[in-house]
Amino acid sequence: MLNENRLFPAEGAARAVAVKLYEAIRNLPIISPHGHCDPRWFAENGAFPNPTALFIQPDHYIFRMLYSQGVSMESLGIPQVDGKQSADPREVWRIFAKHYYLFRGTPTRLWIDYAFEKQFGLKKRLGPDNADEYYDLIAKRLETPEFRPRALFESFNIEVLSTTDTAIDTLDYHKAMRASGWKGRVLPTFRPDSVIDAEYVGFVENIEKLGALSGENVGTYKGYLNALRNRRAFFKSMGATATDHGHLTAQTADLSEQEASALYGRILTGRACSQDIELFQAQMLTEMAGMSVEDGLTMQLHPGSVRNHNQKLFEKFGRDKGADIPAPTDYVRGLRPLLNKYGNDSRLTFILFTLDETTYSRELAPLAGHYPSLRLGPPWWFQDSPEGMMRFREQATETAGFYNTVGFNDDTRAFLSIPARHDVARRIDCAFLGRLVAEHRLDEDEAFEVARQLTVDLVKKAYKL
Amino acid sequence: MLNENRLFPAEGAARAVAVKLYEAIRNLPIISPHGHCDPRWFAENGAFPNPTALFIQPDHYIFRMLYSQGVSMESLGIPQVDGKQSADPREVWRIFAKHYYLFRGTPTRLWIDYAFEKQFGLKKRLGPDNADEYYDLIAKRLETPEFRPRALFESFNIEVLSTTDTAIDTLDYHKAMRASGWKGRVLPTFRPDSVIDAEYVGFVENIEKLGALSGENVGTYKGYLNALRNRRAFFKSMGATATDHGHLTAQTADLSEQEASALYGRILTGRACSQDIELFQAQMLTEMAGMSVEDGLTMQLHPGSVRNHNQKLFEKFGRDKGADIPAPTDYVRGLRPLLNKYGNDSRLTFILFTLDETTYSRELAPLAGHYPSLRLGPPWWFQDSPEGMMRFREQATETAGFYNTVGFNDDTRAFLSIPARHDVARRIDCAFLGRLVAEHRLDEDEAFEVARQLTVDLVKKAYKL
Amino acid sequence: MLNENRLFPAEGAARAVAVKLYEAIRNLPIISPHGHCDPRWFAENGAFPNPTALFIQPDHYIFRMLYSQGVSMESLGIPQVDGKQSADPREVWRIFAKHYYLFRGTPTRLWIDYAFEKQFGLKKRLGPDNADEYYDLIAKRLETPEFRPRALFESFNIEVLSTTDTAIDTLDYHKAMRASGWKGRVLPTFRPDSVIDAEYVGFVENIEKLGALSGENVGTYKGYLNALRNRRAFFKSMGATATDHGHLTAQTADLSEQEASALYGRILTGRACSQDIELFQAQMLTEMAGMSVEDGLTMQLHPGSVRNHNQKLFEKFGRDKGADIPAPTDYVRGLRPLLNKYGNDSRLTFILFTLDETTYSRELAPLAGHYPSLRLGPPWWFQDSPEGMMRFREQATETAGFYNTVGFNDDTRAFLSIPARHDVARRIDCAFLGRLVAEHRLDEDEAFEVARQLTVDLVKKAYKL
Repeated sequence: MLNENRLFPAEGAARAVAVKLYEAIRNLPIISPHGHCDPRWFAENGAFPNPTALFIQPDHYIFRMLYSQGVSMESLGIPQVDGKQSADPREVWRIFAKHYYLFRGTPTRLWIDYAFEKQFGLKKRLGPDNADEYYDLIAKRLETPEFRPRALFESFNIEVLSTTDTAIDTLDYHKAMRASGWKGRVLPTFRPDSVIDAEYVGFVENIEKLGALSGENVGTYKGYLNALRNRRAFFKSMGATATDHGHLTAQTADLSEQEASALYGRILTGRACSQDIELFQAQMLTEMAGMSVEDGLTMQLHPGSVRNHNQKLFEKFGRDKGADIPAPTDYVRGLRPLLNKYGNDSRLTFILFTLDETTYSRELAPLAGHYPSLRLGPPWWFQDSPEGMMRFREQATETAGFYNTVGFNDDTRAFLSIPARHDVARRIDCAFLGRLVAEHRLDEDEAFEVARQLTVDLVKKAYKL
Repeated sequence: MLNENRLFPAEGAARAVAVKLYEAIRNLPIISPHGHCDPRWFAENGAFPNPTALFIQPDHYIFRMLYSQGVSMESLGIPQVDGKQSADPREVWRIFAKHYYLFRGTPTRLWIDYAFEKQFGLKKRLGPDNADEYYDLIAKRLETPEFRPRALFESFNIEVLSTTDTAIDTLDYHKAMRASGWKGRVLPTFRPDSVIDAEYVGFVENIEKLGALSGENVGTYKGYLNALRNRRAFFKSMGATATDHGHLTAQTADLSEQEASALYGRILTGRACSQDIELFQAQMLTEMAGMSVEDGLTMQLHPGSVRNHNQKLFEKFGRDKGADIPAPTDYVRGLRPLLNKYGNDSRLTFILFTLDETTYSRELAPLAGHYPSLRLGPPWWFQDSPEGMMRFREQATETAGFYNTVGFNDDTRAFLSIPARHDVARRIDCAFLGRLVAEHRLDEDEAFEVARQLTVDLVKKAYKL
Repeated sequence: MLNENRLFPAEGAARAVAVKLYEAIRNLPIISPHGHCDPRWFAENGAFPNPTALFIQPDHYIFRMLYSQGVSMESLGIPQVDGKQSADPREVWRIFAKHYYLFRGTPTRLWIDYAFEKQFGLKKRLGPDNADEYYDLIAKRLETPEFRPRALFESFNIEVLSTTDTAIDTLDYHKAMRASGWKGRVLPTFRPDSVIDAEYVGFVENIEKLGALSGENVGTYKGYLNALRNRRAFFKSMGATATDHGHLTAQTADLSEQEASALYGRILTGRACSQDIELFQAQMLTEMAGMSVEDGLTMQLHPGSVRNHNQKLFEKFGRDKGADIPAPTDYVRGLRPLLNKYGNDSRLTFILFTLDETTYSRELAPLAGHYPSLRLGPPWWFQDSPEGMMRFREQATETAGFYNTVGFNDDTRAFLSIPARHDVARRIDCAFLGRLVAEHRLDEDEAFEVARQLTVDLVKKAYKL
């Protein structure tokens, strides 16, 4: 199924360079500084239950496409908020196989074919005819020691992998991993959305838990900030090198201490108006940047997703079910308060992501090509795809250069897709560089250097790994 | 003039695949589910009067380009609101020929060259030197039976063609066509803008006419809705399978019956404020979606065009004179009320179009890649062009796949351009698929299947043809 | 360093055409109708002081990239507002050489390599090892007569070059140039931002100076307009053929004389609110268009840059230090008042620029493809790059054609980069045309004609040169 030259330019001269570049980086270790793997996998190292639970049910790329073509969430066994889930895994797999053609032209198809062939030796395209054959073979393999999470981690040649953990997580699985003596490097990432976004489910309880965990008085703004400092220090002690922030917008604010305190008071009531909620998030981005200057944690911002667009689906199935839709994002005016406070400080590494590609050439590359603290994260989510990655390089490089970018994030909950995703990213970077060389816009020796830096060096530098 | 390999990738490997794919679909019948042909042509089957009336005067792509370079509308014989029109057709043709170089690099040039060569055997590029030769030859041909509308329809291998008809149209030409015994399948499309948009010329009279035609009491909101139901049923009885909606924005609303009734009352006065007018249109999109769930008519939305941007031109020459200019369009928040009501209902097929290409990857593909009711219409109007079509495939496919798209619309008033437009679309789809295959992102057997589906199957399915 | 085929498509068929086209235009004279060269250079014809002052310190493309990677402005010897500047030129050059790899993949790299090789014969890539060698050789050359501004102007084969001059400039250097008998054609451009934008530093004093220079009573709106007319006439008498307007937005207005007078009264106080300031700028664009209809000066609008985004940098180093960031720009509604007044008047040539590429296909090409007065300026600033130029042609041509565009602007303060910039533009145009021919979308003889028109004829026509 997998052609050795997949994703390289069809044109011969550019392809020849891309092939050479790829040869030089294909076997470099995977650095995965941002993603959503479950630390429990590596702590407990249990077997994955079945092919459906591994490939389909955790992967919103897959079930959103099936759903869009009339396949019900229930028939796919997606867990419901009330705990119901009844679909037979093999039946779900058959539905998936029957609709596998829907993924033609999508990155999901590339990722899954890669896993099928490289990890399970399955080389005939999945379809209704061989659904059971696939299911049986994968199920059998999942029972073997080679398919336990730690063994896979090692066979994937992962040097370091970061999870994403809420600020009030006790990181017990991370502790258990360390205690076990396993050498795999799995690090937490500090994600405080649940104690910053007042619309987050359970926000007030989350704040209380934050207070309890930190021993700080979260009844005051000062105490709340100290509680966050405390948790950041704890995460850092557990190996974290970064924070992550998911906001609706990129709005930041720089309020006086008095204003911020008063705002926090209103937020704490749990009945703040939407303007206050937004302003508080804006203020907290600036506070987080300040703490990053202090403690050195790299800061990541993922804005611009309108969460849970489909009300009925959300009520029945909850968050992260493929119904988050991007919206236009304003970085230029939004980030100004934060950047005016910390943008010139080289101690801060602030990585910006976007779901709004129009900002690549208009806002993000100009910003990152100027402010010493700013770096551009790789294409994210809907744009984490061959065409999306290529557009990013084409639209950002001329203004921001390569050195204001930070390599690739797989950003995935689908553990088996990690090697495939990094492989796609490496191939597309080589394809882009191959074209630059073939068009005599970059020397070949430089392209080799850049390919390696995009794969390893810039990632380690940006995430302090 | 026409090279056999036009519009295919210059690169050899991708071109070789594209050529093979195109061979497999080039002779498939034309399915034209959306356009602006005049049903009178097929009802009366009269000869087209002259080359200028056929090629130039109805085609805003042509006269807007000429106008932009200082050619007056008067000199082109564009009819004025007061009925004046004096230009000699042959003189207009000479002006056109003299300025034919202006169309270099535009799709208009591709369409017209195609018609010249394929339909009239004219193979030397049009220019001032051969303007009369062209005129005389075309004029002569137009007198022959082979150039009557029905004969052309058949020679174009059109399987089905939909017109666009206002909700208060009596469809007399469609009736006459049926009565004539002609076998050509020409269907009406239900377009209710004139009775939904309170700023439409003659809106209040249109509502009265709607009442008269339907026999419903349009003095109440309930009666108004019933009148629309009645007209939809009539259109359906005349073969319609779809509705079409041209709105300034993609805003929808889901008001209570009481609110909607009161709003309708204010609208009916003919003196509603602009906010009410917009809200009423928003509400009516949701009502129309509900009726589509009931009666099965596929729903099309064409938003985002600021109509009649050029006030002086509008006053003298009226609507549709090339002075409509696109504006940014918000689908994510705009469509939410409608989608929360009907978006999960597979009985609804709701096809979205855009003039704002930034929404392909940011909004439209994520929406259509999730909601079962949504499909993406092809690139429209200013983007109905080789580069525009390619950008659509490149930017929408990775998230929405091919199967949430609906094939091509020619959307034209220029009858002779229909085969050319479908040919361009087929070639660009083959060019895109050819590149995917050459880059090993899609298997060749799959590309053949997709090419056929984009040309015929997905169109028929989406439009229930 | 410079490959003869640089920037042409890697694919052979398109490249072969591009090479032929380029051969036909590479030696055509440079027409530079918009830029920021200092007229003093040509008036005094003094030697450039040293390599750093020539290449680095005036070029915000260079120091913004260095700054983004932690190189301080002080260490680069960028002059401070308080007059301080202490860096040793050779040390600055060494810093530049050490960080030259940062420019990989950027147009700056292309421009500078071109100057190094073509103007100084330096063919080994700049780096830390040969920094001093570069510095010494360039410094030595700068002392020779061949490297005086006028000699360079001639050796660059510049037929005409326009500077950009504030409305209250006395054009003394232009006068001196003329008086010297030198034959080089260097023309001023009328830029009235400093007397139209009430937030401009020294606005009230600027207005006073305008009054003094023109002999008009600028205490009234009528007198103010006459003063501007007077200055335009003076600029025209000094050879100016164009005006230029840098605004935050593309908003225009068409106020009654009474409203405009009252608004001017509020503006004159120096304490106008931001809405008034914006409205006044909007009104003045329309007034300027009216004056262009009268006096025939071509009008240029450069909107959409949020100036001085970095407050601390601005306070220490002042304007134009690489901290201007683009923002979304609305042309459709913004330009309507002006276009409704003058858009249909062929006497006006109004050239639109953008930093918001989303507007190419959505707004600018549809506008320029309709209004007789409108033309599209070339990609500007952050988009004046190979990928940016290619996107412009790909996204604007199908709707606006080639003939509503105006060729290339180098827009530079970096005199030595002028030949390189024009060379890049010519190569990209040939690359685009080469692809059109290779894809059989344009005949080869037409491509030759278009290449020449884009390089010379359309520029001269648009700028009346």
